[in-house]
Amino acid sequence: MKSEALNNNQLTESPMNIIDGKATAQQIKAEIAAEVKEIVAAGGKQPHLAAVLVGHDGGSETYVAAKCKACEECGFKSTLIRYEADVTEQELLACIDRLNQDADIDGFIVQLPLPKHISEQKIIEAIDYRKDVDGFHPINVGRTSIGLPAFVSATPAGILELLKRYNIETAGKHCVVLGRSNIVGKPVASLMMQKGYPGDATVTVCHSKSKDLKEQCLKADIIIAALGSPEFVKADMVKDGAVIVDVGTTRVPSTVTKSGFKLTGDVKFDEVAPKCSYITPVPGGVGPMTICSLMMNTLHAGKKTYYR
Amino acid sequence: MKSEALNNNQLTESPMNIIDGKATAQQIKAEIAAEVKEIVAAGGKQPHLAAVLVGHDGGSETYVAAKCKACEECGFKSTLIRYEADVTEQELLACIDRLNQDADIDGFIVQLPLPKHISEQKIIEAIDYRKDVDGFHPINVGRTSIGLPAFVSATPAGILELLKRYNIETAGKHCVVLGRSNIVGKPVASLMMQKGYPGDATVTVCHSKSKDLKEQCLKADIIIAALGSPEFVKADMVKDGAVIVDVGTTRVPSTVTKSGFKLTGDVKFDEVAPKCSYITPVPGGVGPMTICSLMMNTLHAGKKTYYR
Repeated sequence: MKSEALNNNQLTESPMNIIDGKATAQQIKAEIAAEVKEIVAAGGKQPHLAAVLVGHDGGSETYVAAKCKACEECGFKSTLIRYEADVTEQELLACIDRLNQDADIDGFIVQLPLPKHISEQKIIEAIDYRKDVDGFHPINVGRTSIGLPAFVSATPAGILELLKRYNIETAGKHCVVLGRSNIVGKPVASLMMQKGYPGDATVTVCHSKSKDLKEQCLKADIIIAALGSPEFVKADMVKDGAVIVDVGTTRVPSTVTKSGFKLTGDVKFDEVAPKCSYITPVPGGVGPMTICSLMMNTLHAGKKTYYR
Repeated sequence: MKSEALNNNQLTESPMNIIDGKATAQQIKAEIAAEVKEIVAAGGKQPHLAAVLVGHDGGSETYVAAKCKACEECGFKSTLIRYEADVTEQELLACIDRLNQDADIDGFIVQLPLPKHISEQKIIEAIDYRKDVDGFHPINVGRTSIGLPAFVSATPAGILELLKRYNIETAGKHCVVLGRSNIVGKPVASLMMQKGYPGDATVTVCHSKSKDLKEQCLKADIIIAALGSPEFVKADMVKDGAVIVDVGTTRVPSTVTKSGFKLTGDVKFDEVAPKCSYITPVPGGVGPMTICSLMMNTLHAGKKTYYR
């Protein structure tokens, strides 16, 4: 019944409104795959995403593998380019230049973090902004802020897509963003205050220097928690009926799981959930939407929706 | 005594803490002029600002004249390029291309608004971001948002400079920004939440769709009013001891002035001022700082502080 509701793009109120990021992501990937099929059938180009992976960081390996798998589900072509951790900045810049020039590559990402001897900012700025499907290039950040069409970075885009798919009202609502990072806090704040839907919210950004964080949270209609501080948001910080979006994903040691750790959000789910109208779980909330947003950006890169 | 205090970069508490934007701007221009003198004496290049003015809009004429005068006070070279209102977009783009190429021009601005047949966004994006001293190019907007060195647009930069020169505490303070425009509200919010000083504030952005605007204002330690709505902020919206920055400059008909109008801020000054610890008047507050920020950007363009 839940998936049926999702298909209708409307969820009816239920006593336990858990936002199902996994199901939503699956559905969006199916929509993308259908569109790619049509494009290719009409003689158009199959979207092609390349990913550059440096070294063998466990987290990065997992993310890149998941991105390649998502490409397959969407009917995209994907290319993985690997470098050892001792690759020079110059070699990496030369690789980016080749990808910028390669007409078959519609979009590409360089998986972060990079080894310390390489400037991440320099790498990001070397990427042709028209292929910057991660949305990290200053031109895409700036255009997003001004309200122009652009590649929006994956996590903020995923959050807004969830709000939209669950028809959550945002206009005139007080949205408190916890965290001011460049990849989540700042861009999601910027999008939530934008004109239109989802947007038009009164937005407050709190962070480590905020003195009135609890007070701000208690007034919030929507809380977007992106501090990376496990179970920071407690029940006594949330008003009844609030919408909670939990972006935190910290690996916390666990004796229950096989891996010896579990992904823990910024929200103390068990005590907060009963007070909320909607809440995203961790895992299975914002996480799956992040890769899904990258897929949407790649589709738009292939269709040249924003540039050229 | 006030100017002496300003020279010491510290103002002592007084019963009537009016932030004197005019005096601060004068002082900064004097500092810039002294630095330019040193640069030129050491064989360096005199900074050179060009302004492009299209048509004969009264406001634009006044602003551009004031900018040229400020260049003179700072010891800059300035060039004014005029076009009639029927100039084509192509002609204007060709002019921008020439200014981009001209090694003697360190920075330039195209005075807005432009006639309706010309796309302002296209013009802004055609400007080499390294010469974009207005800070409107998406690269400068994006870099500002990410916290990288960049040309910050003039009004937000001027507001932060005033807070700094008056040693107004911002860390952990609740700053309410009224208005979400691309040239004031959004960038000043982004700067106030940035790490460091002035910054580290808890920032709330309110706008026409906000339902809790009065309530938010009443909790604010700092209010930055940039709605363009004359005398919108009343005494009953401000808590005792707040800092008020008034960005509004609306021409309101007046029988008192020779011109038949007077510039009116977003704040009902007479009733709000007695409650504040600091307040900027209109005129003579943020206004003079705006042109002053353009001069600082031009100095940095000449010194290549941010780029190349």
